[in-house]
Amino acid sequence: MARRLEGRLVVASHNPGKLREMRELLAPFSVEAVSAGELNLPEPDEIGTTFAENAALKARAAAVATGLPAFADDSGLCVAALDGAPGIFSARWAGPAKDFAAAIGRIERELALRGALDDAQRRAHFVSALVVAWPDGHEELFEGRVFGTLVFPARGDRGFGYDPIFRPDGHAATFGEMTSAEKHSLSHRAQAFALLKQALLD
Amino acid sequence: MARRLEGRLVVASHNPGKLREMRELLAPFSVEAVSAGELNLPEPDEIGTTFAENAALKARAAAVATGLPAFADDSGLCVAALDGAPGIFSARWAGPAKDFAAAIGRIERELALRGALDDAQRRAHFVSALVVAWPDGHEELFEGRVFGTLVFPARGDRGFGYDPIFRPDGHAATFGEMTSAEKHSLSHRAQAFALLKQALLD
Repeated sequence: MARRLEGRLVVASHNPGKLREMRELLAPFSVEAVSAGELNLPEPDEIGTTFAENAALKARAAAVATGLPAFADDSGLCVAALDGAPGIFSARWAGPAKDFAAAIGRIERELALRGALDDAQRRAHFVSALVVAWPDGHEELFEGRVFGTLVFPARGDRGFGYDPIFRPDGHAATFGEMTSAEKHSLSHRAQAFALLKQALLD
Repeated sequence: MARRLEGRLVVASHNPGKLREMRELLAPFSVEAVSAGELNLPEPDEIGTTFAENAALKARAAAVATGLPAFADDSGLCVAALDGAPGIFSARWAGPAKDFAAAIGRIERELALRGALDDAQRRAHFVSALVVAWPDGHEELFEGRVFGTLVFPARGDRGFGYDPIFRPDGHAATFGEMTSAEKHSLSHRAQAFALLKQALLD
């Protein structure tokens, strides 16, 4: 576990926003992030059954294809009263048009169908699983979670995805109402990245 | 919602054990259970993202194919520290050989990887989703859940699947150590069936 990240790191994502975020996070370190998109790497199917499996599938494929260490993440919202759904299907619930208003509507309907109308029945958490894979097969996993309560109707127009219905514990605002700096001080992704940083960068 | 089940009911399962169980449960009522296997119905792919979706896929396909009301269930184990996994993949984690010892070993390793070593970090629940679908498109969903703690090593050789690592709240024994009658007095499937019975049979 004493590996360090240095030199070039493939960010196994075709999402320009994620690449930009990783470049900002890695700026203080001697790591240069290059994206799977820039390298024309194919995107593997996310056929895993957990966040960690899906992140590992993507990181492993990019490391093997490039001979460089590779980073990937997978994340989503788990609603307790829905047995963890949408979970690894959080993006899929929004459909190809990325219609998160529809996905949020579905969560609200599914909760109502189960009589989950008060806060105690509307517990949820965001998960972020980060995996770094090396070409020799070594892999490291870092997970972050933030727990909170779902609120309806959605509140706030910041953030993205399910942020406007998620009120993290200890806060009155939803992720959709917080500034980017506030959200990043407590988010699942920030927690996972802090663990990665401690293990591989500092 | 004032429908009643009477006459022939297709049990959308190719599992003889499930058919037998349904026949026993339905014995007191004027319902005759016929199985999808006996009718040579194809098994639809379980491509849903929730237990309820998978049960509905199966029930709907059988109702459309036969013109009769059809019953299907989907169930599994959701481990809180694993974000609800294995969840709808509970059978898949055991592989084609139905090796639940291997699946239980995987749960134990995944918990250890996340430092989830004490009881409070080993919360889990079983879910059973039952769906009755009519040929006209009407559907009704009944869900049962039983909450408890995972124990390692596994205890007891009764039950099946993940039963030997699941100790339901308020009991010292695992499902694997209980008689069939004890388990059925509190199981997720029994709770879901009680709701179905109340709505459609009594």
